Amino acid sequence: GKDKGESVQMTDPLPSWNEGANKKAIIDFVTKTTTEGSTDFIPVADRIACFDNDGTLWSEQPMYFQLTFAIDRVKAMAKDHPEWHNKEPFKALLEGDMKKVMSGGEHALLQLVAASHAGISTEAFNQNVKDWLKTATHPKTGMHYNEMVFQPMLELLQYLQSNDYKTFIVSGGGIDFMRVWAEETYHIPSHQIIGSSIKTKYEVGEDGIPKLIKLPELNFNDDKDGKPVGIHQHIGKRPVLAFGNSDGDYQMLQWTTTATGYPRLGLILHHNDAEREWAYDRQSHIGKLDKGLDDASKNGWLLVDMKQDWKQVYLKK
Amino acid sequence: GKDKGESVQMTDPLPSWNEGANKKAIIDFVTKTTTEGSTDFIPVADRIACFDNDGTLWSEQPMYFQLTFAIDRVKAMAKDHPEWHNKEPFKALLEGDMKKVMSGGEHALLQLVAASHAGISTEAFNQNVKDWLKTATHPKTGMHYNEMVFQPMLELLQYLQSNDYKTFIVSGGGIDFMRVWAEETYHIPSHQIIGSSIKTKYEVGEDGIPKLIKLPELNFNDDKDGKPVGIHQHIGKRPVLAFGNSDGDYQMLQWTTTATGYPRLGLILHHNDAEREWAYDRQSHIGKLDKGLDDASKNGWLLVDMKQDWKQVYLKK
Ligand SMILES: [Ca+2]
Ligand SMILES: [Ca+2]
Repeated sequence: GKDKGESVQMTDPLPSWNEGANKKAIIDFVTKTTTEGSTDFIPVADRIACFDNDGTLWSEQPMYFQLTFAIDRVKAMAKDHPEWHNKEPFKALLEGDMKKVMSGGEHALLQLVAASHAGISTEAFNQNVKDWLKTATHPKTGMHYNEMVFQPMLELLQYLQSNDYKTFIVSGGGIDFMRVWAEETYHIPSHQIIGSSIKTKYEVGEDGIPKLIKLPELNFNDDKDGKPVGIHQHIGKRPVLAFGNSDGDYQMLQWTTTATGYPRLGLILHHNDAEREWAYDRQSHIGKLDKGLDDASKNGWLLVDMKQDWKQVYLKK
Repeated sequence: GKDKGESVQMTDPLPSWNEGANKKAIIDFVTKTTTEGSTDFIPVADRIACFDNDGTLWSEQPMYFQLTFAIDRVKAMAKDHPEWHNKEPFKALLEGDMKKVMSGGEHALLQLVAASHAGISTEAFNQNVKDWLKTATHPKTGMHYNEMVFQPMLELLQYLQSNDYKTFIVSGGGIDFMRVWAEETYHIPSHQIIGSSIKTKYEVGEDGIPKLIKLPELNFNDDKDGKPVGIHQHIGKRPVLAFGNSDGDYQMLQWTTTATGYPRLGLILHHNDAEREWAYDRQSHIGKLDKGLDDASKNGWLLVDMKQDWKQVYLKK
């Protein structure tokens, strides 16, 4: 109606974004793809926007928050596992030697994931994540982890949602871990959250109560060339907008912006703000952005500059 | 608003359902779960309804329609595969001996699926399904396959959707096969369609154009105890309503109706109408309904009686 149209025009949909080329490009894209009669109009059913999570919607330093959860879980469970005091990577972890834990590579990480994420029901796991979020705080900011979400990105999600875009998370992080808090935090329904997963098994106990038990076995790795696969599996359509922050998002951006028929928009968040958040790219062990930095211009992807483009970083309370 | 409320009350939302206990139970359930202030009220975010497809939303006799597609594809491809004339199950298929094809069991079926569903891009596969739907007709009814959808079920989907239920398909059939036509036919977005799948691989050709290639390897079998797993993977919540037609839906119904916190509704379509559709249950090789028939009453699941409950079977044109 007329009232809605007027209020959309008069209110800045992205108040935490500074004026500039990137903010303008985002608003131009949403405007032209949702204006009926425009040659760039996209029907509602095809308005699919995909967002990476770690480093795109919330912070990821000094280590992925889900890994911190895994470590905290192992510490909490240690009293029931005396054998861990003589077994790596648990021994090093319990002695506080994270450098040694990390030297165990992928195998050590998988053992931590298995201990903290598997062997329990999906409902028990959800409760563990909920309890952890209530108490755990980040070593640098002192904030709860789910408060370390980016205000400008919340505004962008909201702006897209109010323009009938379906927003999806497409993360290398765990799908079950995210669903506990991301639905409420980002206003993204649980079925629009895509991530990595371990297998689950359906079991009916002697009490007749069915459960899904999480197994220590990888089901799907939603990273790099897994992201287009995950998008196809869960959505079944190519996105028109994708937003990431690392080389793990390269294929998602490529799959999105090389598709034909509609305009497409690819965006990469460049963490260059050591004062308000962190500054890292080519050399970082977490969220490494190297090839994406080289190819962004060639591929027509916008580099969002945290320092220049964002008025505010974290959630407004 | 007031106008909407009045029109909902005055119009029968399920005109192709005969009056009776089942129609009443469905309308009572939707009414009480969507009436604010009711102790049975369910918030919109948790209004999740899951439907089996083959034999629940469309017919499945004398063989799964997707198998007919696979057979027709193999026949169409045979001129480029002279080796098939000496290799089972292709030889029997090309000679029209379906009984012999079926005697090859699961192994033979997997070979037909591999030949008809794999080795091509997802986009080429979608085009093959589209082309087939335009031309192929059912041997008994002469109808196009996507016209053999059940009018009463379309009305139920529409009724739930207009009451802010999210409707999902949870089918043993192929997710990619369904997505080509089910979004339009059922008004269910592609990301709310869950099914079985083969693996896909992301590839960027020398022309720089990325593709997802379908591989001859099972990814996920969305049947029996796979259905709760698929529901968890795609939706991340337990449904409040589930509707199936065979023992392949037993675990989905069980997972749905044993959950606590909200009212739940489980329904089974009983095919007992040889005149207008087909009559089959305990002895059928397709859509076998045996344990579900024994346990429906004990589990509080409603048996929908096609002959009694439905005024009309197929799509109104
Ligand atoms: Ca990331
Ligand atoms: Ca079925």
